[in-house]
Order: sequence, then structure tokens, then C-alpha cells
Amino acid sequence: MELKHLIDQIYKKESFLCIGLDVDLEKIPTHLLNSEDPIFEFNKAIIDATHQLAVSYKPNTAFYEAYGLSGWKSLEKTISYLNENYPEIFTIADAKRGDIGNTSRMYAKAFFEDLNFNSVTVAPYMGRDSVEPFLAFDNKYTILLALTSNEGAFEFQTKRIDGLELYKEVIKTSLKWNNSDRLMYVVGATKAEYLSEIRKLAPDNFLLIPGVGAQGGDLAEVCRYGLNSDVGLLVNSSRAIIYASNGKDFAAAAATAARDIQRQMKAVLDARS
Amino acid sequence: MELKHLIDQIYKKESFLCIGLDVDLEKIPTHLLNSEDPIFEFNKAIIDATHQLAVSYKPNTAFYEAYGLSGWKSLEKTISYLNENYPEIFTIADAKRGDIGNTSRMYAKAFFEDLNFNSVTVAPYMGRDSVEPFLAFDNKYTILLALTSNEGAFEFQTKRIDGLELYKEVIKTSLKWNNSDRLMYVVGATKAEYLSEIRKLAPDNFLLIPGVGAQGGDLAEVCRYGLNSDVGLLVNSSRAIIYASNGKDFAAAAATAARDIQRQMKAVLDARS
Repeated sequence: MELKHLIDQIYKKESFLCIGLDVDLEKIPTHLLNSEDPIFEFNKAIIDATHQLAVSYKPNTAFYEAYGLSGWKSLEKTISYLNENYPEIFTIADAKRGDIGNTSRMYAKAFFEDLNFNSVTVAPYMGRDSVEPFLAFDNKYTILLALTSNEGAFEFQTKRIDGLELYKEVIKTSLKWNNSDRLMYVVGATKAEYLSEIRKLAPDNFLLIPGVGAQGGDLAEVCRYGLNSDVGLLVNSSRAIIYASNGKDFAAAAATAARDIQRQMKAVLDARS
Repeated sequence: MELKHLIDQIYKKESFLCIGLDVDLEKIPTHLLNSEDPIFEFNKAIIDATHQLAVSYKPNTAFYEAYGLSGWKSLEKTISYLNENYPEIFTIADAKRGDIGNTSRMYAKAFFEDLNFNSVTVAPYMGRDSVEPFLAFDNKYTILLALTSNEGAFEFQTKRIDGLELYKEVIKTSLKWNNSDRLMYVVGATKAEYLSEIRKLAPDNFLLIPGVGAQGGDLAEVCRYGLNSDVGLLVNSSRAIIYASNGKDFAAAAATAARDIQRQMKAVLDARS
């Protein structure tokens, strides 16, 4: 997908919502558990009910791997369903991968070719040659962990290297890598006050913001500091949407929860124009 | 597995060799490609031919994910084969995972429970709450990336935070986490001169050393600086062993290559006693 198609989507839907498909069999409506593939049936219903309100879906691979072969199958079916029925959607494999060069190439193949995601999240610790194999793919995007939403982010990410916090060093350094125009960054919504600093370093890149909702981030704050001229934000919500109800009305309840966020996003976009 | 069983194995086999099962369909003998599951057949033959020379096997998950569902199936069959036939072997899922707490728990479930590996490699960037869910598993081991063998390691890992290189900060900090006695560290063999520094910080932990062979590390140097009183090293070799031949003699050739390394290891162990 070209970036301009994502941006067009955002303006058309008046939304920069990403819905996290972090599906836990213990949390989905029990009536789905009798189907052949409960995780896929759940995702399909959520996607069908919310695709006009969201521009992106983000399955976190951990939730699929935890169910072994059947989980991996559910992931394959989910991404195929998205690609076949809603090709305008920007898909994110939240996989947080990263390895030495020839191995990262295998991960890139897995997510960009075999599964055909538009993007994948990648960890920066191993440096340039662990990330560039992902960046080599045309019209695919690599979303690098910068400042994550968890408490542990303060352990290494905010420590200073020659006066510059590690997460800033990651952004600054990565922008020098080959094909860095295909980079996006993960910045936790719980750290909205850091966004203006990040925008100084990376004014043009899209930022994926997890943590609105269950992790306590605030949408208005995120927008205030994070928006750029292309909008430049994908704000993720997972549990607050997909588990809005665990009854038979779960998909409708998810749509209501998504619409609530989409309206707030529309208000933000309206206020700028 | 209790650590003492790994140490017993090392003395019994006079080996601290780990064999990396990084299987690429383009590199394995062509006669295997007609079998139902070429990757598993290859692994099975390699394991059967080398299990008396190695104490550990380490499939890198990237190589399996790149083949989608069938790759994941090959991984499941490989770990099941190891657990059923060679329960004394220390198994490593080289997955380099790491996510926020509840998600890391899903990864830990995937590798420790569903697949039943003894250990998994984990990236440190997200800090304590991304790693402790792995450490919570009794008799399972979390192998944290410290100083990796690739060129990109110099980009962030060796940068100084308050005078201390990031990889040392990772080791120092992680030793304060809950259940840190279940931690091991990845230290690239290409950086053997760093091992004496690492041993000052982590005298007791096992170190997983990739990069001997194809990545140019030197076994004698690694042992000189890395051994501790429990041996404390697992030295990995992948391509130099598993691709020693790509003819019908591949398993025998792998055993010859593994025996060559095992003899060097025996010489090191003999010299100490």
C-alpha cells in the first residue's frame, strides 16, 4: 500500500483508529466457542461491524501463537479475510520481531509475503542490519518500537546516551537507515507529553499509538502533540472495543465503542480544517 | 529442566555445543524435498546423527514462520520429537520475543507450555514487565539479548548510559528482576573480548554464544573469557554443521562437523580439570 492511500482513508473515514485484534479465548462470547475457528469468527464479526470506522487492524501475534497451529491458522484466515474483503485497510502484524540480517529477512518474508501484511512492528535493540531487511520491501512499512506504553519503558528507553534518551537515539539513528521513509514508530499513548519531542525528530513519520483505553492514554493529548500535516497518527484501541460486550451483541457493541472514538477523531480533524 | 541436569549433560558428553536448526528449504538436500515435511525430516536426521555430541538444539522461529502454517507445523514436530526422544536435551526457541506484560505472558505460554521448550530468547528493550512473565515459569529459562553478534550491535548496545554500555546496563538491571536466577544471556562470539567484562557482572549465569563458525567467532577466545565454574556456556553453531554437506550424506557430514567442535570443547574441559 502506498502511504497516500492510508492518508486518503483517514480523511474519507474521518478516523485514524486502529483496532487491535488481541483475541483471548477466555474473553470472547461463549456462543462462539462451538464454531470451528472461534478466533477467526470473532475477528470476522468485529471487522465486518467496524471497518467503516477504522483504517487499520492490528493482530498481536502473541495471542495467536499461544494457541499453536490452530492460532497461526486463525491469523492466516484473519489477514486473508482483510485483504480480500477490505483491501483499503492498513494491516499491522504486531510481532515485535528483530534478528540478525539473514534471519530478519525470513521474518520479513513471513509477514510481508506469506501473510501479506502491510506493516510489521520491529524491535530496535539489534540495530541497522536487523531492521533494514524489513525496510527493503517496497510499499511495506516497518513500525519500530521507540517509546512503549508499559512501565518498563523507563528502564532503558528513557535513559540518556550522550545526553539523548535511548528512544530518541533510536529515532534519530534509524532515520539514517536505507529506506527510512518506510519507517513508522510505536509511541505509547501513556507518554503523550513526549510526543512533541518526538515530532521534532520525526516530523513526517506516522506514529502508532497504543494504549488509548485500557492502558490509560488520552486521545486529546495524543492529538495535541502528535498530529502532523498528514495526520500522521494511528491510534490503537484493543480491549475497549473488542471486549465492549461478551454477549451475542459483541460486534454491535464493538461498533458502538469504535464509533465513539471515531467521533472524537472526527472532531479533532474538523477542528484543524 | 533443572540447571544441574544441563550441567550434568555437559560433563557427560564433554560438550557445550548447541546446534542451530535454522532450516532453509533452498539449502537442504534436494532428495528431501519430496517428503511430506522436508524441514522436519531434515531436523530429525540432523538430531539423530548429532544428539550425542550436542547438549542443546535451537530452532530459530523466523525460519519456520517464513513457511507459514506448514513451517509452524514443522517446528511443533521438531520440538515434540526432541522432547519425546531426547528429553535430556536443553531446547531453545530462538524467538527474540518481548511485549507488554499480558502479551509477553501469551508468548511465554506459547513457547513454554504449548510447544514445551526449555527456554526462549527475549529482547530487553521494553524492560522488566516485558520479561518477568517469562521468568515466572519454574524450570524454564529466559535468554535475554545482551550483546549480539551482528554489526548493528554497535549502534545501540555498546553506547554508554551514565558511563555504562547499554548491554551492561541490561545485564546489571535484569539481575534485579524477579527470578533472575532463570536468566541467561546472548553474547555474540564475534565479541569475545567483551566476555571478561560480562563475567564480572554475571558470574553465574549461562551465556548463549552464537556466531562460532559462519559468523566468525573463535571458540578458544570465547572459552578463555566466558567459562565459569559450571562451564556456563552454550556455544551455538548452525550453518557450519547443518549444511556441512547438501548431498545424501548430510547427516553424517553434520555429525563429523559437530564432532570436530565437540573435540575442541573436550580439550577445553580437559585442560581445566
